[in-house]
Amino acid sequence: MDEESFREFGHEMVDWIADYFAGVEEYDVKPQVKPGEIKSRLPTTPPEEGEDMEEIWEDFKEIIMPGITHWQHPGWFAYFPANNSPASVLGELLSAGLGIQGMVWATSPAAEELEERVMEWLRDMLGLPTEFRGVIQDTASTATLTALLTARERATNFESNRSGVPDSLQVYASDQTHSSIEKGVRLAGYGSENLVEIDTDDSFALIPEELRAAIERDCEAGKKPACVVATVGTTSSTAVDPLEEIGEICQQEDIWFHVDAAFAGTAAILSEKKDLLNGIEYVDSFVFNPHKWMLTNFDCSAYFVRDPEALIKTMSMDPEYLRTAHDDEVNNYRNWGIQLGRRFRALKLWFVLRDYGKKGIERMIRKHIDLAHSFRDWVKEAACFELMAPVPVSLVCFRWNDGSRDEGELDVINRRLLEEINASGEVFLTHTELDGSYTLRLAVGQRSTEFRHVKRAWQIIEEAACRVV
Amino acid sequence: MDEESFREFGHEMVDWIADYFAGVEEYDVKPQVKPGEIKSRLPTTPPEEGEDMEEIWEDFKEIIMPGITHWQHPGWFAYFPANNSPASVLGELLSAGLGIQGMVWATSPAAEELEERVMEWLRDMLGLPTEFRGVIQDTASTATLTALLTARERATNFESNRSGVPDSLQVYASDQTHSSIEKGVRLAGYGSENLVEIDTDDSFALIPEELRAAIERDCEAGKKPACVVATVGTTSSTAVDPLEEIGEICQQEDIWFHVDAAFAGTAAILSEKKDLLNGIEYVDSFVFNPHKWMLTNFDCSAYFVRDPEALIKTMSMDPEYLRTAHDDEVNNYRNWGIQLGRRFRALKLWFVLRDYGKKGIERMIRKHIDLAHSFRDWVKEAACFELMAPVPVSLVCFRWNDGSRDEGELDVINRRLLEEINASGEVFLTHTELDGSYTLRLAVGQRSTEFRHVKRAWQIIEEAACRVV
Repeated sequence: MDEESFREFGHEMVDWIADYFAGVEEYDVKPQVKPGEIKSRLPTTPPEEGEDMEEIWEDFKEIIMPGITHWQHPGWFAYFPANNSPASVLGELLSAGLGIQGMVWATSPAAEELEERVMEWLRDMLGLPTEFRGVIQDTASTATLTALLTARERATNFESNRSGVPDSLQVYASDQTHSSIEKGVRLAGYGSENLVEIDTDDSFALIPEELRAAIERDCEAGKKPACVVATVGTTSSTAVDPLEEIGEICQQEDIWFHVDAAFAGTAAILSEKKDLLNGIEYVDSFVFNPHKWMLTNFDCSAYFVRDPEALIKTMSMDPEYLRTAHDDEVNNYRNWGIQLGRRFRALKLWFVLRDYGKKGIERMIRKHIDLAHSFRDWVKEAACFELMAPVPVSLVCFRWNDGSRDEGELDVINRRLLEEINASGEVFLTHTELDGSYTLRLAVGQRSTEFRHVKRAWQIIEEAACRVV
Repeated sequence: MDEESFREFGHEMVDWIADYFAGVEEYDVKPQVKPGEIKSRLPTTPPEEGEDMEEIWEDFKEIIMPGITHWQHPGWFAYFPANNSPASVLGELLSAGLGIQGMVWATSPAAEELEERVMEWLRDMLGLPTEFRGVIQDTASTATLTALLTARERATNFESNRSGVPDSLQVYASDQTHSSIEKGVRLAGYGSENLVEIDTDDSFALIPEELRAAIERDCEAGKKPACVVATVGTTSSTAVDPLEEIGEICQQEDIWFHVDAAFAGTAAILSEKKDLLNGIEYVDSFVFNPHKWMLTNFDCSAYFVRDPEALIKTMSMDPEYLRTAHDDEVNNYRNWGIQLGRRFRALKLWFVLRDYGKKGIERMIRKHIDLAHSFRDWVKEAACFELMAPVPVSLVCFRWNDGSRDEGELDVINRRLLEEINASGEVFLTHTELDGSYTLRLAVGQRSTEFRHVKRAWQIIEEAACRVV
């Protein structure tokens, strides 16, 4: 592709994206394709000689677009959102154009120093302790694995990197924690047998007394508690574990305390939601995802640690070919995570924080929480629907229940209800299990989601229920 | 930012990138900034209210650009390249605009199926066995960690995820392997004590007899060989380990065989370089980076496995909230790696492979190898320079050596020589250590690097030597 073609198609694609943002509502949130349908339309061999961009661009629209699930649709209520924004897209564009790889300071000082600065901005916006230092990771899965590895090293006096993982090490998390915690426990070599699941209360939050009892039991049995993972906003229901009580236990017992606030962490920028992080002063590491609910393109996961030295000691390798002149004076972020290579992700985050400003982001978060509260109220008022969990931020867990069916029937009905709702194409919700019951989730967090979308979702749900029951 | 601003600045940035591509040579490859200089120009707090994009854009040019290291500069001879291309940038732009997250098939069938297809294209272009299945990872560090984890599970009959890592497990790699292998061995819980470093020959390639002896010794001592990591194109010198001999040993001993071909793997698309992968039929997992030498923006690491089931068994978690209707019929790539969330990276790779075609990429690779061979010949012919390693692809390892100085003096001189060369601003080279000697590396692989750039590099090096010695 020559320079002129790049300009031509670049402009065309920018305009296409602008149209896409404006018109994304016209698409079904989830595409109507069968497994293998898209792939069967793609040739089994690459072209021998280069093709015209015109042709590639047409194929993108003809073949790829019909198989896209529209995460940016205002009717996106599934999983958690991964919202983006025009400013973020521009940041990604420039980052791609520069094509730098910021593994060490010297391979782009601006990338490294901008990352330091925007992570300080985020830290202060959320009210994290000022001694926290931040690094952008790809996902919360990776950040949590990183925390578990650091905890493993710290619990073994930094010996397990050298000599392997003793089987006495224990990790604690609630029975509501995200699957990435158990996955991290497995990958880091603890073994999932050594993940101790702590019971939760009626609000699905970890019960500190149960944690204390488990730790005492394990210590008496000669085991070594290495890490507690608490969640601020669980995936199933955005339950909030009590950081303060958990933190006191971790401090007394000298256990690494990691907090997964992947989705709900963003809400802590609001003055009225600061209590989400009560007890943060006890925390050793903390992750939340600007790529979920802060308008920044996936991937961008903000990981903070109180003691970067423990992290760096866990992750550092020092081969000759990676040494640079300024190693003693600068952060080399390659030593702050698993991967050596790093994209320039701070740029889009900087663009977003400046384009919206602190208050612009606050307004969006508040709006989403208000919308979720409206929906929650409709559920509560409806005779045939039931709220399944508290709504601390913007996720509503609910199900159809007229009081006349047993649990087995309710599971069947609600499963069919979800299918019926999603068949509308206008909205996309997903499900979970709470206390053994099939539960529908409505997560509000898309940039363009307004009152009318949530209202329409409720209408679709009520109508679907009439058809299904 | 409203829609019109997005269009306006999107167009402006596309044009800026086109200009940047055309004029990147005007910049010093490495910026002249001191640690902290960029950061000190960035405010310590984010703005309260949103700012105009005009202002952000100006700051990008005024504050960020002076701290950028230009990986896309034709004088980039450092580390390995991470080349991008106009088509790839457009792919990244669209991917950012769509803002999808492809953790499971249902969250964008097109992303999942396109990834399958382009990975088949890459597999066939490199001549990998047809039974190999591919997945895009972020980096080779991650892919290698993934291989080490899968090997760990396989060696323990898939028990170590549950019960932890027995300390008998052994991993083997040459003394030239990349630091990410030892890092992976640490993180996966083997312990670096259990990484057995195998001696290399004069070409810095692993000596199979030494590997066999080490394995026999370990088996007799009751240890359990779990994984051998071979390298096609080591970081220091692009040495190529003999896959066939190593593979035979792995097959006999039933050991997982992983190949790290991060940089040099791309060269296997050339008919005359197919021998790089002699013995590939023995390999269990293989990684190379289209983001290094195949015109695809970082990050894009191509990871292939012979037996996806072993990988999936190692990585799978199955929480209720991630189950979808088609789980039995489709690939859910979340189970093919460490992270749950996934960017739509197949798009840029598809754009690149179609924009260049197979032959277009071959022409570029051939050109780079030819350029490196020219440079190698100049080194060989020069009285005061010495070639430090064979040149199997496009990296030349060399140093100044007139034959009159001892090793200590040579290290000092060559260290100063490198500083002097890089001070030119026109080129950027890095160093390594080979057989204990400080060695300069010139890696050819930038999209726009032509004969005149390599010739100019040699002139700069010769002139710098005159000043330094």
